[in-house]
Amino acid sequence: MKSFMDEDFLLSCDAAKTLYHQYASNMPIVDYHCHVSPKDIAQNKRFNNITEAWLGGDHYKWRLIRACGVPEKEITGSIQSDPYMVFRHYAKALALSPGNPLYHWSCLELKRYFGIDKQLDLNTCREIYEACSRILQEPDMSVRGLITRSKVQLLCTTDDPSDELQWHAQIARDISFPVKVLPAYRPDKALQIENPGFSAYIKLLGQSAGINIGGFDDLCAALENRADFFAEMGCRAADHAFVRCVCIKAPSGAIDTVFKKALRGEPVTVMEAEQYKTALMTVLARKYSAMGWVMEMHLGSLRGVNTMMTERFGSDMGFDCMGNGGVAEGAAGLLNHLQSEGALPRTVLYSVHPVDSEALVSVAGCFMADAECPGKVQIGSAWWFNDTKAGMEKQIADFAHGAPLGCFIGMLTDSRSFLSYPRHEYFRRILCNYFGSLMTNGEFRPPLESLGPMVQDICYRNAVRYFGFNL
Amino acid sequence: MKSFMDEDFLLSCDAAKTLYHQYASNMPIVDYHCHVSPKDIAQNKRFNNITEAWLGGDHYKWRLIRACGVPEKEITGSIQSDPYMVFRHYAKALALSPGNPLYHWSCLELKRYFGIDKQLDLNTCREIYEACSRILQEPDMSVRGLITRSKVQLLCTTDDPSDELQWHAQIARDISFPVKVLPAYRPDKALQIENPGFSAYIKLLGQSAGINIGGFDDLCAALENRADFFAEMGCRAADHAFVRCVCIKAPSGAIDTVFKKALRGEPVTVMEAEQYKTALMTVLARKYSAMGWVMEMHLGSLRGVNTMMTERFGSDMGFDCMGNGGVAEGAAGLLNHLQSEGALPRTVLYSVHPVDSEALVSVAGCFMADAECPGKVQIGSAWWFNDTKAGMEKQIADFAHGAPLGCFIGMLTDSRSFLSYPRHEYFRRILCNYFGSLMTNGEFRPPLESLGPMVQDICYRNAVRYFGFNL
Amino acid sequence: MKSFMDEDFLLSCDAAKTLYHQYASNMPIVDYHCHVSPKDIAQNKRFNNITEAWLGGDHYKWRLIRACGVPEKEITGSIQSDPYMVFRHYAKALALSPGNPLYHWSCLELKRYFGIDKQLDLNTCREIYEACSRILQEPDMSVRGLITRSKVQLLCTTDDPSDELQWHAQIARDISFPVKVLPAYRPDKALQIENPGFSAYIKLLGQSAGINIGGFDDLCAALENRADFFAEMGCRAADHAFVRCVCIKAPSGAIDTVFKKALRGEPVTVMEAEQYKTALMTVLARKYSAMGWVMEMHLGSLRGVNTMMTERFGSDMGFDCMGNGGVAEGAAGLLNHLQSEGALPRTVLYSVHPVDSEALVSVAGCFMADAECPGKVQIGSAWWFNDTKAGMEKQIADFAHGAPLGCFIGMLTDSRSFLSYPRHEYFRRILCNYFGSLMTNGEFRPPLESLGPMVQDICYRNAVRYFGFNL
Repeated sequence: MKSFMDEDFLLSCDAAKTLYHQYASNMPIVDYHCHVSPKDIAQNKRFNNITEAWLGGDHYKWRLIRACGVPEKEITGSIQSDPYMVFRHYAKALALSPGNPLYHWSCLELKRYFGIDKQLDLNTCREIYEACSRILQEPDMSVRGLITRSKVQLLCTTDDPSDELQWHAQIARDISFPVKVLPAYRPDKALQIENPGFSAYIKLLGQSAGINIGGFDDLCAALENRADFFAEMGCRAADHAFVRCVCIKAPSGAIDTVFKKALRGEPVTVMEAEQYKTALMTVLARKYSAMGWVMEMHLGSLRGVNTMMTERFGSDMGFDCMGNGGVAEGAAGLLNHLQSEGALPRTVLYSVHPVDSEALVSVAGCFMADAECPGKVQIGSAWWFNDTKAGMEKQIADFAHGAPLGCFIGMLTDSRSFLSYPRHEYFRRILCNYFGSLMTNGEFRPPLESLGPMVQDICYRNAVRYFGFNL
Repeated sequence: MKSFMDEDFLLSCDAAKTLYHQYASNMPIVDYHCHVSPKDIAQNKRFNNITEAWLGGDHYKWRLIRACGVPEKEITGSIQSDPYMVFRHYAKALALSPGNPLYHWSCLELKRYFGIDKQLDLNTCREIYEACSRILQEPDMSVRGLITRSKVQLLCTTDDPSDELQWHAQIARDISFPVKVLPAYRPDKALQIENPGFSAYIKLLGQSAGINIGGFDDLCAALENRADFFAEMGCRAADHAFVRCVCIKAPSGAIDTVFKKALRGEPVTVMEAEQYKTALMTVLARKYSAMGWVMEMHLGSLRGVNTMMTERFGSDMGFDCMGNGGVAEGAAGLLNHLQSEGALPRTVLYSVHPVDSEALVSVAGCFMADAECPGKVQIGSAWWFNDTKAGMEKQIADFAHGAPLGCFIGMLTDSRSFLSYPRHEYFRRILCNYFGSLMTNGEFRPPLESLGPMVQDICYRNAVRYFGFNL
Repeated sequence: MKSFMDEDFLLSCDAAKTLYHQYASNMPIVDYHCHVSPKDIAQNKRFNNITEAWLGGDHYKWRLIRACGVPEKEITGSIQSDPYMVFRHYAKALALSPGNPLYHWSCLELKRYFGIDKQLDLNTCREIYEACSRILQEPDMSVRGLITRSKVQLLCTTDDPSDELQWHAQIARDISFPVKVLPAYRPDKALQIENPGFSAYIKLLGQSAGINIGGFDDLCAALENRADFFAEMGCRAADHAFVRCVCIKAPSGAIDTVFKKALRGEPVTVMEAEQYKTALMTVLARKYSAMGWVMEMHLGSLRGVNTMMTERFGSDMGFDCMGNGGVAEGAAGLLNHLQSEGALPRTVLYSVHPVDSEALVSVAGCFMADAECPGKVQIGSAWWFNDTKAGMEKQIADFAHGAPLGCFIGMLTDSRSFLSYPRHEYFRRILCNYFGSLMTNGEFRPPLESLGPMVQDICYRNAVRYFGFNL
């Protein structure tokens, strides 16, 4: 029996161990998509206790506790007022969760950041709570300390086009902090024409761009203006979320009419909304393409499906789920349209339902003709509900079955926490195990000396090249 | 090479073996959902031969024989007239079916109930047929004997709300039989407003409730009345089957109009039917919630897709299949509606297409806020076409990836046969192998002494608590 | 560590090795569905170099090269003008593709046909290119030589009903070539009423049948006439491709009207097209059924999704992908309709999205009643994007879970290349490993002496029986 989470955790053969320890483990991290707060980095935030750091904003953990029957007021309602109780609930939930990725992530985080290598359960949670909270007061356990000791070279936050990026500017000016913190451009609100707050948002966007947005052309100009500003701030990626991609073409005059209707607060039909989104995505993708940006498409998740809790607490509180899947045909339609328009940027396709992964690989393979770079269109790392061991294994295998795995840009955290960088370690171990198993089973021939660098490319170098990061 | 189906069948490591033999194997059985006949239990039915006991009502087995090219008259058409021929066909089909769950179940049943541990094939089928048929005449091989020796403490049948439950009453009065046999409330016919027999069924329902059902309010009163009666008879669960969940709201006046139209035998539109179902499900779920019942949702199967055979032989004859999958969005919509109405009971979601399992786990996780019990909404055991070794492994893993596996209520037979209790053994072995593999691979830390009781909870105690059985 | 692709490649236990080496490996090949050119066989084509033989028509390989960022003019645009460059690009792409089936297939082909057992990469590609191209000039490396030495006894090409089958006739007359080369009947163009070229195609079809096609009855007569001609030429199978099966019934008068509209070049609605297809499929299936043909249904792929490249280069160039899946309900509907009409032939269901595999097995199981042969309706081998190791394992397991695996008709190449017969070896190894693993894990009981012949049935004999090939 292997001991729990030892140095060969998840590595099932010698080839895997060699690949991980000799090639992967020491690569720096480029975390090209996450949701951490640039303000916290700029201000080098510190945490009062482990509950604040771990459970302050992590809806994965809240969901696990809720599922054990704990009332909401003892979870999100007590993080400030009774942090130990929340931690204790989490300890109890974890002990009930064999096979859950949070179990692995949490144990890795306790070990890597706090040196704690014991079972977290009701017997130990007081001791571990106090040890962690004490260690968090050490100088290098601030936000910047956590980032630096995790070997992060660069990270991309996720930002609204109207954002002034003041914190990014402040971080960039501070030469004492060597990590690049870049914005990513996420114009979802400009696309969600059916939302009640749409017209107010467009006003805000116009102000940030210095453009009075009265029609669709103004909107495009404003978004392009903001993209230029983001580019000046180092941005290399745009990010989109769709339940399903759409591609319904309409004359530009019709789009302008729909947009003006929405600006006046009048309802638009589903068809009109889809035509609007298709038109705007075309404009945006053309811009991304011209700037050499990467377009990341997050497909298939249903947000805020528990209306009662979403109305009470807002979004991103852990009341989101997978849809039915079935995003490949829409993605193929949109990519085809963008290609026909000469507006197809480098594109990463993420699907929240694992069923779509094989199909999206096959879609990506249709849009590689005359690609300007290896793996121009590719599927992204196992996302959200899929970032389990099995989910990562499936994503890697699905990628390999339909495309050159050596072109894969690898892992990201997609996290709201500064303690989640060990997910890169988790991914790297699984990646090395995939390669190592192929070798051990006599299914791939090249020697470790040529596989090792390919593993390193996937862990680090491919992402740097693909996004064009200047490191 | 492991010997076939030995005591460590399906147990691939020492940890798995210890968990199964020391913790799981001796737990009693609570079979909380099945389709056996309460009349057979009340009358303590005996079987003339193994064909009657094994092949009398089991469409899984019929399908396997049919797939070998055997005509129907030699399968369902010969069970009474030539039982040995049918058994022989089955023996031949089994020998052609490596990897099929029937192979495992059948071998387990021969071994556990008849002490027969040899290959069933054309060479041995006469001998095995005669041995089994002889053993079936022994005193403890009646229906009650089979249940008792299988360590079943409690079982829930599946019953129409109009049922008088006379056999349940008779069983309950008989103190010589220690097993609880409870009804479960399955009002599918009251929901299927589009069915030709709907209005006749409503009349029958009204008679059983002593209510003249003239409108939707009467219908609700009648169903609530029957639910109260079922509750008096010990019922703790309601059961529903949907191809897809629906949630289309309409004013209550409109529902009443639709219902009256259907009562008059006039056709209703698809939209009207869905509005009706949404309204009635709301009323029913509120009632279940108030009574602390569990709502089991069986989603995604297409029934009677071979019209010719269904018209000839009726339903539940093995002419049903998986639909395309894609039941998660509908389920999320319905659960959200019920939650908004304060009418969300404990809910178990079963999907007949394995693709929906991951998505339904993520849906369940959205409706745990302020849950009154651990795992309030959860996915059910691998169902129907999925109750294979691989299907059970996937269901357990999908559950674990998105929820605390320690809250899982475990296995049920869903069977029409009194010989199918070894499916619990099959499940327990697979469950222990899942836990054991995690430990052996260094992926879960707690010692066997704490894992063992968690395994027992899943095998038995969680279901008792979740359904609130009084044992 | 196993050495790469040694004699026990993909065989993980002794039982698997015995089954493969003693039973499977020497079975002849019946390649019952492929896309090779009968003209090339009739003319016994020779290849100038390995690029022509390997990369001349294989869009799988082109896609892999494209995905590495190579421009189209250096792939399909240089096969004649700079064959070595194209080969070199492929060598580079392969080295980036651990886990890709092309890696295995290519290595197997180099080894089996050229005796080359070294890594193909940028260091070795010149040497390997020259060795292969030289070997291709040897006498037995012509098209017929490749077929014969691969132990192919029979192959079925894929042909339009209007085809005169002159090459098939020429091959049949040539007694020096012992391999049967049969046509297969693929009337897709007669079904695609919405296509621009439809009416021109119908004219061509009429000419081949000697019937002036003015209405739907004429069309049916012409197609039946051509089917009779194909049958005379030895045809035993028809082949269809659908994104989704349809079953929308309409009166025959309405079908005739729709057909005449399309003949005049007028557009038909989606509904009309589906009604037409349902009606024509009924006529065709009835004919297949009467002739004892097998109907192969290829479901779910989207063709030519990259419009720009498809317009430039035509179809079958590697710009096709999986759709969203979800073909089971349509297939069930169509099969049910055919069964009701007494027109259900032996049917093989292929799904391009792996998600549909389990559901199609369950659908197939509904149409076995009074089947005239074992496995009358069954799922086909892992198809297209699924013919990976994992894809084949899944297809075999899905089949086994829902049907008697012993009735499976096994592998086909579906290939456009005369070097792809080692895919049968690949499949057989995976099949033997499946059987062997069941035995090794104590999950199947019969001795190797009875499993061996079952493996051989699946490799060869079942297909011969199922198609009724006269060998």
